[in-house]
Order: sequence, then C-alpha cells, then structure tokens
Amino acid sequence: MRAIRVEGSGRDAKLVLAEAPEPELRDDEVLIRVHATAVNHADLLQRRGLYPPPPGASEILGLECAGVVETVGKSVPTVSDGGFAVGDRVMALLPGGGYAERVAVHAGSVMRVPASLSDEEAAGIPEVALTVHLNLFQLADVRAEDWVLVHGGGSGIGTAAICLVREAGAHIIVTCGSDEKCARARDLGADLALDYHAGDFSEAVVEASGGGVAAILDSIGAPYWAQHIRCLRPDGSLILIGLRGGTKVEANLAPLVGKRIRVIGSTLRALANERKAEIVRRFLAQFGTALEAGRVRFPIDRVLPLSEAQQAHAIVEASQHFGKVVLRNEDF
Amino acid sequence: MRAIRVEGSGRDAKLVLAEAPEPELRDDEVLIRVHATAVNHADLLQRRGLYPPPPGASEILGLECAGVVETVGKSVPTVSDGGFAVGDRVMALLPGGGYAERVAVHAGSVMRVPASLSDEEAAGIPEVALTVHLNLFQLADVRAEDWVLVHGGGSGIGTAAICLVREAGAHIIVTCGSDEKCARARDLGADLALDYHAGDFSEAVVEASGGGVAAILDSIGAPYWAQHIRCLRPDGSLILIGLRGGTKVEANLAPLVGKRIRVIGSTLRALANERKAEIVRRFLAQFGTALEAGRVRFPIDRVLPLSEAQQAHAIVEASQHFGKVVLRNEDF
Repeated sequence: MRAIRVEGSGRDAKLVLAEAPEPELRDDEVLIRVHATAVNHADLLQRRGLYPPPPGASEILGLECAGVVETVGKSVPTVSDGGFAVGDRVMALLPGGGYAERVAVHAGSVMRVPASLSDEEAAGIPEVALTVHLNLFQLADVRAEDWVLVHGGGSGIGTAAICLVREAGAHIIVTCGSDEKCARARDLGADLALDYHAGDFSEAVVEASGGGVAAILDSIGAPYWAQHIRCLRPDGSLILIGLRGGTKVEANLAPLVGKRIRVIGSTLRALANERKAEIVRRFLAQFGTALEAGRVRFPIDRVLPLSEAQQAHAIVEASQHFGKVVLRNEDF
Repeated sequence: MRAIRVEGSGRDAKLVLAEAPEPELRDDEVLIRVHATAVNHADLLQRRGLYPPPPGASEILGLECAGVVETVGKSVPTVSDGGFAVGDRVMALLPGGGYAERVAVHAGSVMRVPASLSDEEAAGIPEVALTVHLNLFQLADVRAEDWVLVHGGGSGIGTAAICLVREAGAHIIVTCGSDEKCARARDLGADLALDYHAGDFSEAVVEASGGGVAAILDSIGAPYWAQHIRCLRPDGSLILIGLRGGTKVEANLAPLVGKRIRVIGSTLRALANERKAEIVRRFLAQFGTALEAGRVRFPIDRVLPLSEAQQAHAIVEASQHFGKVVLRNEDF
C-alpha cells in the first residue's frame, strides 16, 4: 500500500508518499480503508524524531482516521454486540498508521461515523474529541456551568474543546495568538478569548469565571505554571498534556494544598487498548447523541491530499490554521 | 462547660483547662458529651496560631472525639433512617471543639462506636481513618495488591494507614525516625519500614514495590518532591496533605506527563459538611464491617486526662509517640 514516509531527520525531515507493507490484522482489530486522516501536533514531533510511537504501534504517522471497515478480526464483536462489520463507515483513534491507505486498530478505539458527517469531518474528530473528553470530562470531571481554560483556541484541541464544553453547558476561556483567531474562537462559542501576547492572563480568567476555573487543559507547561495555579478555583484541576513551553518550574506547593488543586499528567497515545476503549465508551455515553445529531462537528481549516502531508505540517507548524487540517486519500 | 483554652501565642502557647460557653446546636447537628478526644498534628499548629479554624467552626482545639449523644438537632434523621438518638455511643470528625465537655457537629460527620471498642480507642479513629480513606482510597483509588508509601509510620496517620492498607489487601511502605519505630511499624503490618535519616529512599521503595508505588500520602512536601516522583509507578498519585518540610520546589514536569502522575493537594477540615458526609459514607462502605468486627483498631500510645493536654502536645511535638495520644474527660 501507499503511505507517508519520513525521510531525513530533525526539523528538516520530509514527508513523502511511498510504498509501505500492508498492516497486519490482529484478532481484536479491524482493518480500515483510510479515506481521510488529520494532522495533530504530535505528528509534527514524531516527524522530527521527538515522539516515537509506543511499542507495537505502526511507525507510520497519523493518530486518527475515517474510512470503511475492510476486514474484521476474529474476536471483534458482531454489530449486534456493539462491534463492526465489513463496509461500516468508521472513525478511529490510532496509536499511529493513519497516513496510509489502510490501518489496523483495536476495535475498542473505533466509532461509527454519523450519516451527517463527511469522511473529512469525521477524520478530525477522534484524537481531539477523546483528548478533550478524557482530560476535561473524565479526569477533571467538568460539569455544566463550570468554567475551563484551554490554550490554542484555534488549534484542533482548542476548537474541539470549545465545541464540547459548550455542548456540555459549561463555559470556556481560550488563549490565541492573534486578534483574528480570538474573534473566530468567540464566534465558535468561546465565552472569552485572550491574546496570549498580552501577558499575564490570570486576572482576566479569575474575573471572567467568577473566582477561578474548574479545569485547565495545558499543553504549554512551565511558563504558565504560576498563572495557572492562580487561575484555578478550589478543587480545580490542572491537566498537563504537553510541555511545549518548558518543563522546569519553581513551584510553590502551598496553594496546591490550600486550594486542594489537582495537577494531572496525561497522555492518550500510550494507554492500553482496554483503557482507550473505556475512554471511547464514556465519550459516546456523554456526546454520542449530539454526535449523531450533527451537533458535535469541529471546524475544518482545510483539506489537502495525503501526498501534500509535508505542506499540511508546515501550516500547523506555523499556526496558520483554525480547526483541523485534514489529509484526504485520493485514490478510493 | 469546661474546655481547653490556648493561652499566649506562638511556640510557647499554653493549654489550660478553663470555662467556655456551651456549644450551640444547629438543626442538622448532634450534641455529643465528649468522653475522649485525641491529639492530631494539626492541633499543634492551631495552638501556635498557624492553622486557624475554618469559618463557623469552634475556636476550641480538637478534630475528633468519642462519647454519647446528648441532644439531637431537629433535622437529623432518625435512627431507622441512618441517623442518631439520645444515648447513642458515637465518634465524630470535628472541624474543632473536641477538647471540651460537649461538642456540636453535623450528623454526617458522626459514626457509631462498635461495641468492641472503648471510648479511648474510638476517639482516635475519625480524623486519621477518614484522612487515610479520603486520600488513599478515594482520591488515589488504592486497590488490593497496590503499594503505597506513607511517612511517619509511628504517627496517628501512619499507624492508621498501616492498619487500613493491610485490611484492604494492599501493601505499605513507611518511613520512621528510629529503628525502634521501624520495628514497631513492621510489627503492626508495614511491609517495609525505612529510617528516614538514612537518606534517599526512592530506590528502596521502587525495588520493594516492584516498580513504584500507586500512591504516596505526603505530609512533608518540598524536600521529598523529586524522590516522590521517582517512587511513583505510572498513573500513581502523590497526595499532599501537609508541607512540614517546606513549600518551594524546583519541579520537573516532564515525568508528571510521562508517567501520567497525579499530584493532589488535599485537606479534610475545610470541606463542606455534605462532602464530609460522603467521605464518611464511603469509609463505612469499605471498612464498616471490619470496624464492627474490631479489625479496624489503631494503636493507642497513651491516654492522658484532658487537663494534661499541654503534656500530650509536647509528646506529639517531640515524636515520642507510636499511635494515637488520647485525652480523656475525667468527669463523666
């Protein structure tokens, strides 16, 4: 089959369409003919050799996809038992392998695509929806009327967070890198969008949220640590999903105890299949109806052919996007 | 009524038996005739003015007691609805007020005393049992076969943790300040007891637990931060309940994300009554049968008359105790 291969290494590593071996199908997996996949920030790191796939995962980039089931492993449940059949339209969270014609993935990481969504829309849902759900709704237990803070309001994670948090009846503050992105984030539903170039955001966050947010989805890390602790209400959660800004902090533990704050390090990709299946189940239990009704629908920045993965990465790397950058297989 | 009063301030503040106003009974409270109370480390801080009572709580020291119900508030459920009646033998978690003849407390913080336990034994249970249960079994979700690390293996918290963790079929490593206390902690059931004067304990903890502990109950804070992060297994929890050793750390956030670690600041005293009631319910759901059968029974270091509260504090302050130091009302 054809798949994207990484050539070279480091910042200049290139993405080229090339031949790759067909994936092997395990008994608890389904083989998906990939119609579309989408770019995640983790892909950029992996391209540069900074985020190796977990043991057993495909070396090919790509953490999510949408397509059609081509083969079903022997121990995958039947459709009547909640499983899948050949020909089903599906989207999936992947530990890797999405930038390809076909990918094999544990059936617990697969979801049906609602009829109201295109393949391109569906391809950009699993990674960001499940990241947001795991961290904000499962780990931080965000409820209706709660306030949350998310960085990168124009990113895949940021736009997904805006959609899901609002659908849940909660409130969301985002930071963005430009006035234009702030405006688009507000249009999408953000209660408040702050330009992070303006400096310390903690006072504005505490004021807007009426005393502090219940949860922060943090992909930045060290530079925001002290501000984040100030932003949280008592019993609030700081969820660390990335440390793009740095890893070393001078931390004062006193407010952690005084406000009963939870700091939770979180990764999705390395989790066991059964844990991922539980995350998918809980996401569908809360948002399955809204997904089916077409209310959970994240903005697409643009759709490029898979052969232009290199250009797609450049767009995300330069933060030129608002919403998901999707890669479409051209030959199905 | 008579109660202990703090005279003076700072490290030299004295505890003297004096007259105090009778507590006022709210509708959702029971009034308890206190037969015994017990010393907690927090009492030492409060005596020195470092741990003021939460708003609305008694100014009198004392976070737990055992005794007999003397009056029942109007909205407290009847016995058949899980509530209390005059004459019931009870023990209670208190936001303050235990070093006295009588104390009024929300009915949700009150538990029955099993027939197998004396008042002195019961008086030393609520604060430490509920602290251990909230933090290890509720927040950190410790299960059978898990390993945990607790400091102060001879303290009230430490001895209670040994008893409850072993009763739950889990494993516990404690640190103590002397060989003698280490030996007593092992006799009580600790799988491993380490003298903290021996230096870095993280290697021994990781080795004994077969790769790291699921949870750490940390009352020390800053000096142990880096060791604690090393001690935790993936998905492990560091529960901060005190910062006796210091509050400022140079923290590396990378292993928090890499190991999906949770750092949870936790206090019991300041929680709302309904939250405390839920903690009591969950403690009794897991350990009520063992409590009734006399299997949950924490060691008593010694029993002193309430009038000798000053001496009791000196003993705890000097870490001369192993188990609870109990104060007995002499006039009932």
